[in-house]
Amino acid sequence: MNKITVGLIGYGNVGSGVVNFLQKRKSYFKDKFHIEFELKTICDRSIKKKSITGLDSTTGLTTDYKSVINDPQIDVIIELIGGVNPARQIALGALQNDKHVITANKALLALHGKELFQQAQKCNRNIYFESSVMAGVPLIKMLTEGLAGHKFKSLYGIINGTCNYILTGMTQKNLTFGQALTDAQAKGFAESNPTLDINGMDSASKLAILVSLTMGKFINAEQVYTEGITQISHHDIEHAESLGLTIKLLAIAKKAKREIEARVHPTLISKKHPLSDVNGIFNAMFINASPIGDILLSGEGAGQMTAASGIISDLFQLASRVGCPANQYLANIYREAPKTKIRKIDDISTRFYIRFMAPDKVGILSKITGILSKHKISINSVTQKAHDHWASALPVIMLTDPAQEKMVRVALDKIHKQGIVKSKPVAIRMEELK
Amino acid sequence: MNKITVGLIGYGNVGSGVVNFLQKRKSYFKDKFHIEFELKTICDRSIKKKSITGLDSTTGLTTDYKSVINDPQIDVIIELIGGVNPARQIALGALQNDKHVITANKALLALHGKELFQQAQKCNRNIYFESSVMAGVPLIKMLTEGLAGHKFKSLYGIINGTCNYILTGMTQKNLTFGQALTDAQAKGFAESNPTLDINGMDSASKLAILVSLTMGKFINAEQVYTEGITQISHHDIEHAESLGLTIKLLAIAKKAKREIEARVHPTLISKKHPLSDVNGIFNAMFINASPIGDILLSGEGAGQMTAASGIISDLFQLASRVGCPANQYLANIYREAPKTKIRKIDDISTRFYIRFMAPDKVGILSKITGILSKHKISINSVTQKAHDHWASALPVIMLTDPAQEKMVRVALDKIHKQGIVKSKPVAIRMEELK
Repeated sequence: MNKITVGLIGYGNVGSGVVNFLQKRKSYFKDKFHIEFELKTICDRSIKKKSITGLDSTTGLTTDYKSVINDPQIDVIIELIGGVNPARQIALGALQNDKHVITANKALLALHGKELFQQAQKCNRNIYFESSVMAGVPLIKMLTEGLAGHKFKSLYGIINGTCNYILTGMTQKNLTFGQALTDAQAKGFAESNPTLDINGMDSASKLAILVSLTMGKFINAEQVYTEGITQISHHDIEHAESLGLTIKLLAIAKKAKREIEARVHPTLISKKHPLSDVNGIFNAMFINASPIGDILLSGEGAGQMTAASGIISDLFQLASRVGCPANQYLANIYREAPKTKIRKIDDISTRFYIRFMAPDKVGILSKITGILSKHKISINSVTQKAHDHWASALPVIMLTDPAQEKMVRVALDKIHKQGIVKSKPVAIRMEELK
Repeated sequence: MNKITVGLIGYGNVGSGVVNFLQKRKSYFKDKFHIEFELKTICDRSIKKKSITGLDSTTGLTTDYKSVINDPQIDVIIELIGGVNPARQIALGALQNDKHVITANKALLALHGKELFQQAQKCNRNIYFESSVMAGVPLIKMLTEGLAGHKFKSLYGIINGTCNYILTGMTQKNLTFGQALTDAQAKGFAESNPTLDINGMDSASKLAILVSLTMGKFINAEQVYTEGITQISHHDIEHAESLGLTIKLLAIAKKAKREIEARVHPTLISKKHPLSDVNGIFNAMFINASPIGDILLSGEGAGQMTAASGIISDLFQLASRVGCPANQYLANIYREAPKTKIRKIDDISTRFYIRFMAPDKVGILSKITGILSKHKISINSVTQKAHDHWASALPVIMLTDPAQEKMVRVALDKIHKQGIVKSKPVAIRMEELK
């Protein structure tokens, strides 16, 4: 019987899910896998207020995380408090005390991943983090083990369930952003303060981790160009639909030669692509890697038991390595390829959806297209509805060919500042997902 | 530097892909992962006729597999000859000689998996088999590690690229079965003798492996109820489309309480479900497991480099365990839960699409529905087109509510034998994919 002694720090939603899973499956793990996970200590700053039932009499409860990371009997610390501090101190302390670490903490890894992995390597221990991206849907394992040795060309991810739920509501039920957010909050799919989700920062942290794992350069969340979904109007969602497109908050990473793109922003994709069918709180990752080609993985990206199952998968990984040296592949994943750079957003080339609100005057289209053309922006299609005498401005929708980001920004700025259009043009990037 | 000494038996399409991958990524593996895979011997019965370039001068070539499995320097045998014998002797011999085994051989595992895994456990070695289902798309790793400890409720798989390519051609290009098969063969997506693919046996072998891994009972391919796609008519594909459905060859496994269903057959699914968008040679697996919920994994299910990448993933797994005892979880995966039975096809309850060719006479519908009703088959919808004096018979399409397989077979048999309809009714099972 292999035994792993566990200290769990952070008895919140996910923590209680993990404890519940371990209790329920205790005899199954013993019988089928000859493994016993002994939950020695649960730590939470509010432990006295929490009602935890069904624990073994031997499980201790404490508010003092230091006692847990200093306990020589504990083999692994499960860190589930979230945030950066004291999670960083907990992780470092655990490693320095010869303990493995299991975490779901994307913010911590996106900021301090390099330091933590170097510390793990020094201490001959491992950090496991399946639930940091797409909860327990086994993405991390797929990238680091299933596709070990692959060259990753692109990752396109829907990796924030809150944003995806809101955009789905706007698309399928014609809700405004505000209505969709309220609905998400009522259903528990958005926090009362949803900022980190709807401004894209949650997706950016996750993308930083994925880029660091797959593209040979450690990047942190701040290096990911990030836009959230707060500026998305249901008008644009409708226009997109009529063009056979749908709007998703995509986390995009690409690598060609030694340049990496890493960006999170609303993106128009074809309704024919499987990613467009990933709705509600579902997450998905669409990967292109050589030599395997395209892979799509999707599942619920959040939720108590979905996140808990990733932690359990990490515990199993640990259990399968009792008596083994630390897994050097996990420690080495942050090894960086030399001379790899991050492309600035200004230098990105992509197609754009642009919506102008054009006043009902002669010559507007000519002025707009003239400026676009001067900035080397080629127009792929234009949709302009017939004149409507009641409207003060009408939408003109243009889809461009690939154009340089900087040129697009400068051109649209000019168009707006010269008073050619009624309000600031809306520009949303497109992706072909090849 | 960890070193793994490899003996590769079977230098065919996949074998040459593996050798190619190992050669190309040699320094990448050394630099990033500190791992050296030494390809000591390549064995193939036609080795003299094969042109293999770029090998190290130390790599031996032979036609004699026994010399390879008896070589004490070799740590792992990669078996890529396919078929059951002598692949079984190779695998057993390798294990008995303290070597690990990596294989893509679904026929072997579906038939002898239990014996092989027991032998592996006895010899304290592991069998790795990522490429046996869905090529290198990391399904096996997901099921056995990423979702370790989960209870699997259902698996719905499109796991034969040949059949999926043919059905896609029939659906999207209105081809007949014969035309679609010819096209598949011309493109290299179907063998010159495509029998094992189009009769469903390939999918059945793969499903047997998946059931054995996830549902606590070792089953072999013969225990999987199997129908292929040779009876699918483009008429039914068109009718399905008009009903918002599409026809896929699905490999279906379900477990409830202690009963398992395992079947492969053409199945109508909703065009709204993501599985309906899995086309051409792409494969997919739609899983429902507790507590994670639904997961979808898809990618190219065949192809030289796709299959080779699964072998490489297995080599990495091995490499990460240098200095470790054999992975008992892999050895234990065939551990069986007591009293688990396989449900007979007769006892399956599912919805059916049924096409009757009804002569233009009074009372046909009444006779049909009368017999169905006597056999407790409730009709969900009927589509019958208007009379056409030029046609000797017209299609009447019925979609039933869930009905017992045996009752449906008996009822349709009666309807046919009583001469109520012009030809044998076509019945295709439906799945809601919940």
